[in-house]
Amino acid sequence: MHYPNGKKNNHTYQTLSSTRRSQGFSNRGMTLEEDINATNTYYRDRNKAIVHKKPTPVQIVNVHYPKRSAAVITEGYFKQPSTTDYNGVYRNKHIDFEAKETKNKTRFPLANIHEHQVRHMKSVTKHGGICFLIIRFSNFGETFYMPAEVFFPYWDEQLNGGKKSISYETIVEKGYPIPFHYQARVHYLAVIDQLYF
Amino acid sequence: MHYPNGKKNNHTYQTLSSTRRSQGFSNRGMTLEEDINATNTYYRDRNKAIVHKKPTPVQIVNVHYPKRSAAVITEGYFKQPSTTDYNGVYRNKHIDFEAKETKNKTRFPLANIHEHQVRHMKSVTKHGGICFLIIRFSNFGETFYMPAEVFFPYWDEQLNGGKKSISYETIVEKGYPIPFHYQARVHYLAVIDQLYF
Repeated sequence: MHYPNGKKNNHTYQTLSSTRRSQGFSNRGMTLEEDINATNTYYRDRNKAIVHKKPTPVQIVNVHYPKRSAAVITEGYFKQPSTTDYNGVYRNKHIDFEAKETKNKTRFPLANIHEHQVRHMKSVTKHGGICFLIIRFSNFGETFYMPAEVFFPYWDEQLNGGKKSISYETIVEKGYPIPFHYQARVHYLAVIDQLYF
Repeated sequence: MHYPNGKKNNHTYQTLSSTRRSQGFSNRGMTLEEDINATNTYYRDRNKAIVHKKPTPVQIVNVHYPKRSAAVITEGYFKQPSTTDYNGVYRNKHIDFEAKETKNKTRFPLANIHEHQVRHMKSVTKHGGICFLIIRFSNFGETFYMPAEVFFPYWDEQLNGGKKSISYETIVEKGYPIPFHYQARVHYLAVIDQLYF
């Protein structure tokens, strides 16, 4: 089954499975999405930055309106997102990013990102937004910040017969490790501060 | 009254509605949302600004996975949005706005806006984003740009027993009419250019 972003994005199920994990069914960490959402909440609460995840786009086909209770969507479909998942404002700048985790231990497969998302990132970059990818190698628990401008040549090369992935070594070399902070678990603002301010 | 580009813009609306009348449809225009979506598409296609409407937030409760076809959401609920509906980047700045239309002829009822949206707009403004409301009086076909900073005092006053609405006259006086452009039907960038650049 194909989902936008090539992963299941049913939030209810993710919440369910993270509950199971915290109850000791697995010792894996939180998902990258959960970590970033917690980080953004911390940033907002401390008034450091205003960043939100965009809602999952749903094509709503049928809605039932029961008497005396909330409208129920009875038929809907997942749509492909046309932008990145996260955006907001930090220190007067627009910031915009996509976050992906891979279980691959040696490379980040470019199939994780969609063509229209790259087009969006190129546009945002052109208009002066701070644009980047957050890439997590979940087996290592390592999370990297890759500036969009660094990412674009790899993307463009694979369209012209180049490699379909970026090696772990390249990401270590060209990217920036994102520090872990006990409340900002993916403390990407630290990297932005270093790169832009 | 403030006029970006120093001219009135209502003759274009008359043209639009008389065209519809001649086709035998009602003389109501497109919805404000449709007009803004078309405007944003035009801006993106011309590479003027990158602005998107956020997807409607849906709480997904049940998904059915049929064989050989797309996943179907069979139970979902509308969630209250925690941000404004539109954001993006323009001339290196983060922009963020909410759009509302009213059939009221004399005032804009503040009940159209939610508390958490105002909180979001205050935060975005504090972090240097360009933040505003687009308010349409649909009976007049008039659409106004109201800077968030101008809006906040009216919002705060009603919380302290003040008026529950902003009068049409106040919006005319403190806001900016948004010019109609035949492709950018709600050409709000013209107002931003005038105010910020």
